[in-house]
Amino acid sequence: MDSKVNRLAILGSTGSIGQQTLQVVRAFPERFPVIALAAGDNLALLSQQINEFHPQYIHYHKQATQTSFKAEFLSLEEMAVLPEVDTVVVSTSGKASLTAVLAAVQAGKRIAIANKEPLVMAGEIITRQSKKHKAKIIPVDSEHSAIWQCLQGENNKPANIILTASGGPFRAFTPAQMAAVTPAQALQHPSWKMGKKVTIDSATLMNKGLEIIEAHWLFGVPFENIKIVVHPQSIIHSMVEFADGSVKAQLSSPDMRLPIQYALTYPQRWANPDLPKIDWSNLQQLVFAPPDFQKFPCLQLAIDAGKAGGTMPAVLCAADEIAVNAFLNGRIKFMDIVSVVGAALDKHRKVSDPELAEILAADAWTRDFSNKMIGKMK
Amino acid sequence: MDSKVNRLAILGSTGSIGQQTLQVVRAFPERFPVIALAAGDNLALLSQQINEFHPQYIHYHKQATQTSFKAEFLSLEEMAVLPEVDTVVVSTSGKASLTAVLAAVQAGKRIAIANKEPLVMAGEIITRQSKKHKAKIIPVDSEHSAIWQCLQGENNKPANIILTASGGPFRAFTPAQMAAVTPAQALQHPSWKMGKKVTIDSATLMNKGLEIIEAHWLFGVPFENIKIVVHPQSIIHSMVEFADGSVKAQLSSPDMRLPIQYALTYPQRWANPDLPKIDWSNLQQLVFAPPDFQKFPCLQLAIDAGKAGGTMPAVLCAADEIAVNAFLNGRIKFMDIVSVVGAALDKHRKVSDPELAEILAADAWTRDFSNKMIGKMK
Repeated sequence: MDSKVNRLAILGSTGSIGQQTLQVVRAFPERFPVIALAAGDNLALLSQQINEFHPQYIHYHKQATQTSFKAEFLSLEEMAVLPEVDTVVVSTSGKASLTAVLAAVQAGKRIAIANKEPLVMAGEIITRQSKKHKAKIIPVDSEHSAIWQCLQGENNKPANIILTASGGPFRAFTPAQMAAVTPAQALQHPSWKMGKKVTIDSATLMNKGLEIIEAHWLFGVPFENIKIVVHPQSIIHSMVEFADGSVKAQLSSPDMRLPIQYALTYPQRWANPDLPKIDWSNLQQLVFAPPDFQKFPCLQLAIDAGKAGGTMPAVLCAADEIAVNAFLNGRIKFMDIVSVVGAALDKHRKVSDPELAEILAADAWTRDFSNKMIGKMK
Repeated sequence: MDSKVNRLAILGSTGSIGQQTLQVVRAFPERFPVIALAAGDNLALLSQQINEFHPQYIHYHKQATQTSFKAEFLSLEEMAVLPEVDTVVVSTSGKASLTAVLAAVQAGKRIAIANKEPLVMAGEIITRQSKKHKAKIIPVDSEHSAIWQCLQGENNKPANIILTASGGPFRAFTPAQMAAVTPAQALQHPSWKMGKKVTIDSATLMNKGLEIIEAHWLFGVPFENIKIVVHPQSIIHSMVEFADGSVKAQLSSPDMRLPIQYALTYPQRWANPDLPKIDWSNLQQLVFAPPDFQKFPCLQLAIDAGKAGGTMPAVLCAADEIAVNAFLNGRIKFMDIVSVVGAALDKHRKVSDPELAEILAADAWTRDFSNKMIGKMK
C-alpha cells in the first residue's frame, strides 16, 4: 500500500461501522479512494453513498432490483480480491463475509476487520492462510485495535491480554430485572453506538466472549491468558501485560471512528479534528470491577466454546445470531438467549480441525436446531 | 550490545536506584556482568557490592581512603567510556555525573539515565551530541520509561505527553500546614521509595518540573505539549497522546526495578518473578486530578526555566539542590525552598545556547547565591 493512498472496498457500507468508515473517508477523500461498496438491503442509503463516493463496483443483497447505477455489480468474494483495492474493510454482520474474508486473505490483501464472526467461526483457517499469503488482518473492534496498538514495537508476545468490558446496560440489574428485559432496554448501550446485533451481544456479554475468541486468533494468546476487566466508562479500550509485568493500555473517547481510521492509516496516525480527544483537565477516575460470570453466563459459554475449538465457535455464533434475532422480534425472552446457545453447544457433535465446508455445515445445523428450539418455546 | 549480555558500569551504585539496579542484576547475573561500580561516600556498602559483584573498576568519592580492593580506581569519566562496558547506568544524584554522561555520549554508549540533572542542566548539548555519536539515552525514571515504552513502534511524534504525578505527601495540605512541614514529614512519600533529594523534590513538585524539562529533551516535545495529571496511586506512570487522539499509557505497580530492568533489556522484556504484577481482580479505580500550581509554585518555576532555556535550568537545579539540603538540615523551612529557587532564577543573567563551561559557571554562581541567601534567612 502506498502510504499516502489506500484504496478501499467496504463490505457492509450501510451498517454502523460502514457509515463511520465513510465518515473517516470524508475527512481524507483523496487518500481513501472508494473502489467498491457492498450493502445488505438498505438500497436508499447505498444509493446516496454511490452518488457521493462514486465506487466502480457495488454489491447489494437483493441484486435483482432495477437500478440506474453506472457501477458494476460484483459478489462480495469478487470485491475482496480486486487488484485495484488495497484494503478490504469488513463491516458486515454475522457470517455474511466469511468466504469473502477468506478470498481477501488468499489474495494477500490488507483486511480491516470489524466483523467478529469470520475469525470466531474460522479463526484457525484464516490465521493459517494469512501467514501463507502474507495478508495483514488489522482489527477495527476497539478492544482489538487497542491491543494491536499496544503491541506495536514489542518484540515479545504478550504474557496476558486484559480485555476491558463496558459491562453493558444490565451490569447492576438483579436476576428478576434481567428476566424481564425488553429489546428496547437492551438496545440502550451506555457508552457505544453500535448495530442492533452487537448491542444485544453487549448486553448478554456474548460480545465479550466473541472478542476473547477473536483475540485468541488475532494475537496467538492462549485462552488462559486472556482476562476480562469490567470498565463501564469505555475509556481504556484494552491492555496488554508483558513478561516483565509492564502493562500498556490504549485510551480514547469511545468513538469507533478512531480505531477505524487507525486500521486505514496504520502504521501512521493522521490528525483528524473530527475525532474527540480526552479532556485531561476533566478526567477524575477510571473504574474497574471483575466480570460477573453468574449473571452473564454467555461469557463462560463463549470461553468454553473457544477452548473446545473445532466447530464449536461456529455453533456459538450461529445459535447466538438466531437467538438474538428471536429476542429482538419478541419471540423469546432475554435470558432465553443463553438457553438456546447452551443447548446448541450441548447437542452439537464437534468436528475438530474442520474444513470450511464443515464449519458451514455446523452453522446450518445450528440454525436449524436453534429455530426449532425457539419454535417450541413459544 | 549483544542481546544476551549487557556489561554494566553503575555510577551511583550505593544510592536507591543503584541498589535496585543491583537487585535486577542479581536476578540475571550471567546476563549483566558488572564491570564498574562507582559510589559517593558509602564505603561500607560499596565494599559489600565489590565483594559480591567483583567489578574490574571502582570509584568512590573519597579516593584517598586505604582499601585492599583488587579493582582498579577510575574517575567517573573514565568509567563512562570503558570499551568493555555496553551500558552506563547513571544513578548518581545532582550534577555529579554531568561530565561523565557527556563522555559516555561522546563514546556512543548506551546510557540508562535515572539522574535528572544532566539532561535538565545540559539537555541541548547532550541531545545534540547523542545524535552525532549515535549514543542511546534510555530513561529509567518511571515516567520517562513509561513514555519511552508507549512510543515504541510509533512512527509519529507524540501530539502531547501526559506526565502523571503522585502529587506527593502534601496534596491535601492547607497553606498553613505546608508552612509547618518538617523534613521527617516530607521524607514520607506515599507511593515511591526513593533517595532523600528526590523525595523532597516530589513533595514540592519540583521533581515533576524537572521531569517536564527532561521529557522535553528526551522526546523533543515542546513544553506546551507536556501536561501534568495528578494520579496519587502511581499505577499509570505516564501517557502519550498521538495526532489521531489515541492515547497509550504504561501501568505497573510502583517499583523502580521494572523501569531499571527495561532500560537494561530494551528492546526485549525479560520475565522476572521478583517484579510485582498488577492484580486485575483487585483493581477498583484509578483517580486523577489537575495539578495545583498555586500550592506548588516550584512546578511553574521549573516550566518557566525550561521554556527560558539557556543556563536557566542549571540555575533551577543548583538552587534547588542547595535549598533542599538546607531544608533537610533544618536551616530553612519547607516553603523557603521555592523562595530560594525563585530568587536565584530572578537574579541570574541568562546565557543563551551555553557551552558546558558556561553551564558550570551558572551552577557555581547559583550555589554561591543560594548559600548566601540561606545564610541571611537564619
